[in-house]
Amino acid sequence: MKGFAMLGIGKVGWIEKEKPKAGPYDAIVKPIAVAPCTSDIHTVFEGALGEREDMLLGHEAVGEVVEVGSEVKDFKPGDRVVVPAITPDWRTIESQRGFSQHSGEMLAGWKFSNFKDGVFAEFFHVNDADMNLAHLPDNVSVEAGVMITDMVTTGFHGAELADIKLGDVVAVIGIGPVGLMAIAGAKIQGAGRILGVGSRKALVEAAKFYGATDIVNYKNGPVDEQIMELTNGKGVDKVIIAGAKPDIMKTAVKIVKPGGV
Amino acid sequence: MKGFAMLGIGKVGWIEKEKPKAGPYDAIVKPIAVAPCTSDIHTVFEGALGEREDMLLGHEAVGEVVEVGSEVKDFKPGDRVVVPAITPDWRTIESQRGFSQHSGEMLAGWKFSNFKDGVFAEFFHVNDADMNLAHLPDNVSVEAGVMITDMVTTGFHGAELADIKLGDVVAVIGIGPVGLMAIAGAKIQGAGRILGVGSRKALVEAAKFYGATDIVNYKNGPVDEQIMELTNGKGVDKVIIAGAKPDIMKTAVKIVKPGGV
Amino acid sequence: MKGFAMLGIGKVGWIEKEKPKAGPYDAIVKPIAVAPCTSDIHTVFEGALGEREDMLLGHEAVGEVVEVGSEVKDFKPGDRVVVPAITPDWRTIESQRGFSQHSGEMLAGWKFSNFKDGVFAEFFHVNDADMNLAHLPDNVSVEAGVMITDMVTTGFHGAELADIKLGDVVAVIGIGPVGLMAIAGAKIQGAGRILGVGSRKALVEAAKFYGATDIVNYKNGPVDEQIMELTNGKGVDKVIIAGAKPDIMKTAVKIVKPGGV
Amino acid sequence: MKGFAMLGIGKVGWIEKEKPKAGPYDAIVKPIAVAPCTSDIHTVFEGALGEREDMLLGHEAVGEVVEVGSEVKDFKPGDRVVVPAITPDWRTIESQRGFSQHSGEMLAGWKFSNFKDGVFAEFFHVNDADMNLAHLPDNVSVEAGVMITDMVTTGFHGAELADIKLGDVVAVIGIGPVGLMAIAGAKIQGAGRILGVGSRKALVEAAKFYGATDIVNYKNGPVDEQIMELTNGKGVDKVIIAGAKPDIMKTAVKIVKPGGV
Repeated sequence: MKGFAMLGIGKVGWIEKEKPKAGPYDAIVKPIAVAPCTSDIHTVFEGALGEREDMLLGHEAVGEVVEVGSEVKDFKPGDRVVVPAITPDWRTIESQRGFSQHSGEMLAGWKFSNFKDGVFAEFFHVNDADMNLAHLPDNVSVEAGVMITDMVTTGFHGAELADIKLGDVVAVIGIGPVGLMAIAGAKIQGAGRILGVGSRKALVEAAKFYGATDIVNYKNGPVDEQIMELTNGKGVDKVIIAGAKPDIMKTAVKIVKPGGV
Repeated sequence: MKGFAMLGIGKVGWIEKEKPKAGPYDAIVKPIAVAPCTSDIHTVFEGALGEREDMLLGHEAVGEVVEVGSEVKDFKPGDRVVVPAITPDWRTIESQRGFSQHSGEMLAGWKFSNFKDGVFAEFFHVNDADMNLAHLPDNVSVEAGVMITDMVTTGFHGAELADIKLGDVVAVIGIGPVGLMAIAGAKIQGAGRILGVGSRKALVEAAKFYGATDIVNYKNGPVDEQIMELTNGKGVDKVIIAGAKPDIMKTAVKIVKPGGV
Repeated sequence: MKGFAMLGIGKVGWIEKEKPKAGPYDAIVKPIAVAPCTSDIHTVFEGALGEREDMLLGHEAVGEVVEVGSEVKDFKPGDRVVVPAITPDWRTIESQRGFSQHSGEMLAGWKFSNFKDGVFAEFFHVNDADMNLAHLPDNVSVEAGVMITDMVTTGFHGAELADIKLGDVVAVIGIGPVGLMAIAGAKIQGAGRILGVGSRKALVEAAKFYGATDIVNYKNGPVDEQIMELTNGKGVDKVIIAGAKPDIMKTAVKIVKPGGV
Repeated sequence: MKGFAMLGIGKVGWIEKEKPKAGPYDAIVKPIAVAPCTSDIHTVFEGALGEREDMLLGHEAVGEVVEVGSEVKDFKPGDRVVVPAITPDWRTIESQRGFSQHSGEMLAGWKFSNFKDGVFAEFFHVNDADMNLAHLPDNVSVEAGVMITDMVTTGFHGAELADIKLGDVVAVIGIGPVGLMAIAGAKIQGAGRILGVGSRKALVEAAKFYGATDIVNYKNGPVDEQIMELTNGKGVDKVIIAGAKPDIMKTAVKIVKPGGV
C-alpha cells in the first residue's frame, strides 16, 4: 500500500509499505478523511521526536473499519469510526493510575507517527480497538469527526485541567486550533469572561466566534500588563497555555489571581 | 419599625420592633424587594428550626444601605445591595477550614429569620457588611437580584458540588425553584443531557426552558426504572437532589453510574 | 480437582470440578494459603449475592502460578503471587473512568466466589494476570500476603477515601479486621487521634495496637453522644464506617465537624 | 522600646521605636523566644522585598500576651502563645477563596518584617488575635513552639501540597530546615520511601533522623540521573522542592512518574 512518510529529519515523500495486520484485539482502518497537525511539521522538520526513517505520518483520521481481530466486540468491518490521536495501552500501570496518555512512559499513549506508522496511508493499524475507537454518529460529519481526534479534545482537555468554575475569568494564551478549542471548552464549562491572546485576523475572529470576550494582541505591549489593565488589576482566575515559549510561565504567574491555576 | 414575624410555631403577624443598630463592621439596610422562601413556611408551620417567638421572617432581599459601621469600607448609605440569605461569621474556625456556611456550627451561617430578625421589616441588620454584601449592578433588576440571594445560588451550588464534567448526563430530582436553578447551573457548566424529575405543568415548562432535555414524571412509575430506561440501562453521571424525602438516596444510588456522585 | 463450594443458599460442601484453563492473558494458580472472609458467610448463609449452585468459595489467597497464557509477560510457572480479592476487567469503560472495582457493573470487579469459582480449590483461574497479580516479595510471609488481598487493602481504602489530613481526629466505626486496618491506615496517613468504636476485648486490644487512641463502647450509651463528649463537643474530622447497619449514617453526620467526611 | 532592625538594604542595627498599640481585634505580645530565618537574610542582604527603612526584623516567635483589644475573645494578658509567621487578613476576598496566605495580594498574608515591624523587639503587634494566635500547650517547649511558627508548618505544607499517598516514593530537594520538615511531613503522611537531596553532613544526618531513606548528593552527579538509577528507572511519585534555583523544575519533571506532582 501507499503512504506519506517522514523519510528522515527534514524529508518527506510517498512510499510503499506492507499493509498492517490486526492482532486479536486490533483493527485495520481505511481513512475516509485525515488532517495534518502542526505536530507533523515539528516531527519532520524540527526532529521533535528524534530521527525516524520511513515512518508514515498523520494522527488525525476518521475511517472505515476493514478488519478486526478475533477478540474485538464493539466494531466490525464497514463501521465508520473516529480514531483518537492518542491510542493508549490500557493494560499498563500508568493506565491503572489514571494516566493512560502516558501508558508505558511519558506521552507514550501517542503512537501514530511516533512509535508506529500513522494514518496518512491506504490502511492503518489501531491497537485495542474496543478501548480506542468510537463510532462516528450519523449526525456528525466526517470533517467534524476528524477535528474531534486531536484539536477539540486537546483544547477541551486544557479547559478541563483548568477546572473552570461558574463565572471564572479565563485567559487563553495562543489561539491556534488548540487555543480556539480551549476557548470553546472554557465557555461550555461556564467561564464568565474569556481573554484570548493572539494577533492574526482570522484567528481573532474565530476566537470571538468560539467565546472570547476580549482579545489581547501581544504586538501591542506586554501581555501581562494588558491583562492586568483589562481586569482592573485583579488578574484572571485561570490561565490556559495553548502555544508559546517556556518563558510564558512567568506571564501566567503574573496574571493569575492568588489561588488560581 | 414594623415587621412580619413568626409569633410562635404556626402563627404569624405584623409586629413592632426597635430599629436595629450597626456595630463597627455592620450595615443597616432598608428592603427594596423581598421574596418569601419555602423555608419561611417550614420555619413557621413545621417548626423546622424549633420554637421562635416574635422573630421577623424572610431571608431574600435586595435593599438600600441606610447606615454603616465605622469600619465598613466598601459600602455607604444609598448603595443598592444584594443581601445573601447566608451571612457567615468569617472570623471562625469553620470559615478558616473553608466552610463559612457552617460558621459557628452546622448551617449557622444562616442567620436571618433563624438566629436573628429577618428581612421582612422596614430595616434589617447585616453583619460584616464588607464580607456579606454585594453591590447590585446597574444592569441587574431588583427582581433578578432577589433571586440571586438564595434560589439561584442554592441551585448553582448543587450543580457545583456535583462537579459536572463536559457532556455529563445529570439527573435533577425536584424542579421547584432550587431544582430549576440546579438545571440551569448544570447546563451552564457543560452537562450534555439533563433529566428533570417533576410533574407540575408550569414547572415542567420552566425546567425545559432552563435546560432539561428530558422530564421524568414520578407519577408514571418508579423514577429509577424510568431513568434507567431513558439511559439504555447506563444510568447518569451525576444526581442533584433538590427536594424529596430521605429515601430518595436509594433512588440516587440506583441511577448513578459506578463512580458517579 | 477438589474444591469447597456453596451448594446453594445455606449449604456448603466439598465437590469435584474440572481444573480451570488459562486464556491468553490469564493464569492458573495453586493456593499456598487462603483465608475465609465474612463475605463468604454472607454469600452462603444470607444469600447476599443471590442463589449460586456449586460455586467454589473464597477470595483471599497467596499461591503459586502453575500455568500462564501466551500473552502473559510478568509471571511464569513457579512464581509466588498475591492474588487480590478484586480482579477487574481492565478493558472496560468503568476502568477508563477510574473505577476498576466496578468494571462491567457496580462491584463487578469482584469475581471470585461471585461471578466465577473462588480460591478454595486445588487450582483457580486469574483473569488478566499481568494487571491483577503481584509477586510476593521474599520478605513478606504467606500469612501477611493473604491479609493484603482483602482485609488490609479494604481497610486502607477506607482511610484513603477519608482523605486524612495531618493531625485529623478520625472515628472508625467497627473494629473487625477491616476496621482495624482502617485504624492502621489512618495512623500511617497522619491522623492525630483515632477513636475506635467496638466492644469485644480482643478487638479492643488489637485496635489499640494498630493506633486507636480512644475506644468507644456502644454498650455504654449512644455512640454520637460519647464521641461528642470525648471531643469536647467539637466532633471529629473524618468518619470511616467499617461495619454497622445503614442507620449508622445518622451517627456519622452527627459526629463529624462541618466540612468533614 | 528597643528592636533589631533592617536599616536599609545590607545594613542592620538596634534602634528605638514606639511601643505598638492594639486595635479592637489585635494583641500586643512580648517575645519569650525568637528565631532568625533565612528570609531575614534575604530581606536585608539581598533586598528580596525591596528597600525597607528601620523595619524591625523577625517573624518566628513564642511570646506572652501583654495587651488585647476590646473584641478579642480567646486570649488575655499572661497567655503564652505561638505566633505564626503568616498572620492573614481574614476579612478579604482571597481568604474567602481559601487562600488566606495571599490575603490582599500574592504572599501578603506575610506581614512581620515585610509590611509591618517584626518580632525582634521588646513588644510586637499581632493583627486579628483570635484568628492568628494559638495557645502554647503546657507540654510543648518554647523552643519547639518557635519552630512551629514557620519551619515545621512550611515544610509540612509542602508535604500537604504534594498530596502524599500510602507508600509513595517522594523526593525532597533541599534539606535545610524546611526540607527537613518536608521529609518529616512526608513520613507522617505515609510515604514509603523518601529521597533527600543534599550534601552537608549534619543535614544528611538530620534528614535520616526525620525519615529520609536515601540521600542523593548533588556533588556526585546530576540529581535526575542519580534518582532514576536509585528507582530502577521508574522515578518518584512526588517531588517537594525546598530550596534550589528555578531551573530545578526541569529536574523535577524528569524524575517524576507520569501523573506525579
